[in-house]
Amino acid sequence: MTLEGVEPRHRTNGERQPCPFCPGQEHDTPHESLAYRTPGSRPDGPGWQLRVVPNKFPALRPDAGGTFCAVEGMVFLTTPGFGRAEVLIECPEHLTAPTALSPNQFAAVFRAYRDRMYTLAEDPYLAYAALFKNVGAEAGASLGHTHSQIIALPVVPESIEAELSGSDAFFARTARCVFCDLASRELADGERVVARSEHFLAVMAYAPRYAYEFWVLPISHTSRYETLTDADAHELAALMRRVLVALDKVRSEPAYNWFLHTAPLRSAELPHYHWHIEVLPRTARPAGLEWGYGCFITTVSPEQAATELRLALPPVA
Amino acid sequence: MTLEGVEPRHRTNGERQPCPFCPGQEHDTPHESLAYRTPGSRPDGPGWQLRVVPNKFPALRPDAGGTFCAVEGMVFLTTPGFGRAEVLIECPEHLTAPTALSPNQFAAVFRAYRDRMYTLAEDPYLAYAALFKNVGAEAGASLGHTHSQIIALPVVPESIEAELSGSDAFFARTARCVFCDLASRELADGERVVARSEHFLAVMAYAPRYAYEFWVLPISHTSRYETLTDADAHELAALMRRVLVALDKVRSEPAYNWFLHTAPLRSAELPHYHWHIEVLPRTARPAGLEWGYGCFITTVSPEQAATELRLALPPVA
Repeated sequence: MTLEGVEPRHRTNGERQPCPFCPGQEHDTPHESLAYRTPGSRPDGPGWQLRVVPNKFPALRPDAGGTFCAVEGMVFLTTPGFGRAEVLIECPEHLTAPTALSPNQFAAVFRAYRDRMYTLAEDPYLAYAALFKNVGAEAGASLGHTHSQIIALPVVPESIEAELSGSDAFFARTARCVFCDLASRELADGERVVARSEHFLAVMAYAPRYAYEFWVLPISHTSRYETLTDADAHELAALMRRVLVALDKVRSEPAYNWFLHTAPLRSAELPHYHWHIEVLPRTARPAGLEWGYGCFITTVSPEQAATELRLALPPVA
Repeated sequence: MTLEGVEPRHRTNGERQPCPFCPGQEHDTPHESLAYRTPGSRPDGPGWQLRVVPNKFPALRPDAGGTFCAVEGMVFLTTPGFGRAEVLIECPEHLTAPTALSPNQFAAVFRAYRDRMYTLAEDPYLAYAALFKNVGAEAGASLGHTHSQIIALPVVPESIEAELSGSDAFFARTARCVFCDLASRELADGERVVARSEHFLAVMAYAPRYAYEFWVLPISHTSRYETLTDADAHELAALMRRVLVALDKVRSEPAYNWFLHTAPLRSAELPHYHWHIEVLPRTARPAGLEWGYGCFITTVSPEQAATELRLALPPVA
């Protein structure tokens, strides 16, 4: 596994002029499905602080029909590309680094995740809302203006299914939430903890896929991201921002993804599951062992990465 | 998902002069564990046609100890880095494209996979031999001289475990091997078939992770790659080479990985499992949806990709 050849983040592909996410270019995106706006400003015009619009190049479509069809017996399974694909434009300014967002702007991103989730849950054919962010070309970003993506799916995706069933099995044996156990053990040990705030913990992944992978989770139990209060959003944003500033410093602004793992839409509070955000920096290039066998090699231990990030943390704002 | 920014394959990272895999540089690699040699030539000297050596920068070590230790209760599990990491140097000439190998050289690669598997199976602490190939920097190759990697693990890796249990469940319901069903249905339908020979089939993955992902498998049932005869190796190599030539032509020499999925070491013949090779070209950059949720978006359908590859196939040699 080599670190060479990983592209610097500023080389984002396909940067267009003018930026379709900047104010004044609202005609270049479909009609907004959510916006935080200055009172009196008109939908699909300037005056917004954050804007969610359908993706102009959607991976899934709301008009694609929603039923599974088994094809050719039990071997092949296919379904129409039903779902919703949206873009969450995080600020009107043409900022490319999420760490350049103001505290209020950063918090608004996490509020908007929650608000969209509530609305998407109203469609009974949608099972899950994937909320994620690609930063840098190496991590799949195609436009520089800082944004998140929302992909609402008619099924619970594979990775979430695996977490739900794994944590359920742990709960059946122990009557405990594995993420609660993880948080309390990591906090007691401290070795992999990067930072914490009153209600949230940022901790290196115990078995990272990429070096410097870290997770952010609420310290108290809750499976549903929808329970996030506005105050929580501010606290979460502040913690996230501090760790990302440290990551940018330690790894020279690597490309990364973050993704929210939470319970399925309309789920009741689950005793065994616990929402969290995983941040996956592109610190290597997965090859045959990773893609072929699901085994990941990293060259920096999570304990070492935690030490480096702790030393690079900016002060609490 | 964008295709822009995917690097051309010739930009392999870390190319060194002189190449440590070329004849005359045998002192630059650890002692060979297998070589196909001209009779009378000496180990670790020139005169070889194919050579397997321990990786100079091993991910796992045979002297690392082999027992699992549960750490801190049930939450964290760790084990020493026990195993073997080897490099299979496929030819003495400094060729970078596997398609440049002669038919005999290409066949020798598949014979050597089998031969090493037999030897590695003698170590009772090794559970699985991962055999894979990285072509191009984008796919994780760090040296240009065409080679495969062998990583022998003390556990059966996650992806193989999933295939074994999934195919076992299918067998329990149907008394059939799901891969045999797949092969016969694909052959009958033809739409995703790229090429076949007497005993082997090359077919596009029904649900590809990357566009142009294809699989090569024996048409008749066998779970154990070790059953491959020398004649099979020649036939497999010829089929594989034809499809790779077509892929290089259609996608302008993309980076790719291939990996062998076979039964664990020392496994009996399994009625539900079926060895196969998966070829994964880097035709896109996985982002948050792929890494975070296990959902893959491709922009070329397997049926379209099959058509393109069929049209680009070289004649049977």
